[in-house]
Amino acid sequence: MKKSIAIDMDNVLVDIELNWINWYEKAFGLRVEREAMRGIPEDAAFPDPIAARSLLYQPGFFLNAPIIEGAAEALQSLKEHYDLYIVSAAMEFPNSLIEKHDWLARYLPFISWRNIVLCGDKSIIGTDILIDDHTKNLDPFKGETILFTAGHNINVERHTRVNNWAEALDLLLVEERLAP
Amino acid sequence: MKKSIAIDMDNVLVDIELNWINWYEKAFGLRVEREAMRGIPEDAAFPDPIAARSLLYQPGFFLNAPIIEGAAEALQSLKEHYDLYIVSAAMEFPNSLIEKHDWLARYLPFISWRNIVLCGDKSIIGTDILIDDHTKNLDPFKGETILFTAGHNINVERHTRVNNWAEALDLLLVEERLAP
Repeated sequence: MKKSIAIDMDNVLVDIELNWINWYEKAFGLRVEREAMRGIPEDAAFPDPIAARSLLYQPGFFLNAPIIEGAAEALQSLKEHYDLYIVSAAMEFPNSLIEKHDWLARYLPFISWRNIVLCGDKSIIGTDILIDDHTKNLDPFKGETILFTAGHNINVERHTRVNNWAEALDLLLVEERLAP
Repeated sequence: MKKSIAIDMDNVLVDIELNWINWYEKAFGLRVEREAMRGIPEDAAFPDPIAARSLLYQPGFFLNAPIIEGAAEALQSLKEHYDLYIVSAAMEFPNSLIEKHDWLARYLPFISWRNIVLCGDKSIIGTDILIDDHTKNLDPFKGETILFTAGHNINVERHTRVNNWAEALDLLLVEERLAP
């Protein structure tokens, strides 16, 4: 039986940092450098964090976010060896529910609706592996955890880290893992 | 630590049978008796099953469905002793995502967004208990299963059955279960 992987969306499949920078610039005329997001909570990188958070509720914010480099190709490869589930904590932003569904249909059409989970707390997700950028999701997870690098988590040391999808494939497609 | 229960929506919290009968009558002028739904797939009870299924895609179908008798009071009681998660296979009907969220906010406002899961396949849900009306969800579930009676499942015998929320409370709030 294939092992199962739960894969987070924001900062793992979706380049939400770049998207947020772009939307903030469009709304408030000021461009934050991506480097400013390193080692601090995401919204704290913006001059006005409350205004920055208000953007998350704007129609189109999630739908039009760009995909992270290599994500689609990586999932195509992983799908041959693992059962993949997209697991996004979308429930905090109800407007994002349909946008996240539609984003997946646009960028990852080979992922079935059966394999999409929009939730709040991820602690009840029972896959073998979780790939996520947030320790709040990884820490209580019962299976194997993989931390996907995002600006806010660069100082975290307690989970196996991958910096990009190429590194994730190196970790997950090694022979010892795939042997029956 | 409290045990966790995943609770299905349609036919467990939401009276989708009655709702479907009402919508079919409004759309096609013919009222199907609830008894006609017993022991057969839900859509097969309607003279035109394809027309009946088309109603599931209509705006408002899920949002305006009535709550099942005793469900809100039962969840209030269970919440004191269990971690409750609402787990609905909503992903097949993308239009239902926001409606299911809004339905829960209306009828069960004491359930946090953190405890709501809208998904496809429920096999990766890792709660201790699942209450559901569909064997396709209960059969692959790894924890304890409770079949909530709906017309279509009256002949199923391979899961513990409860016919209503009063019976569910009798099963789940007995002293032996709640003892630390």
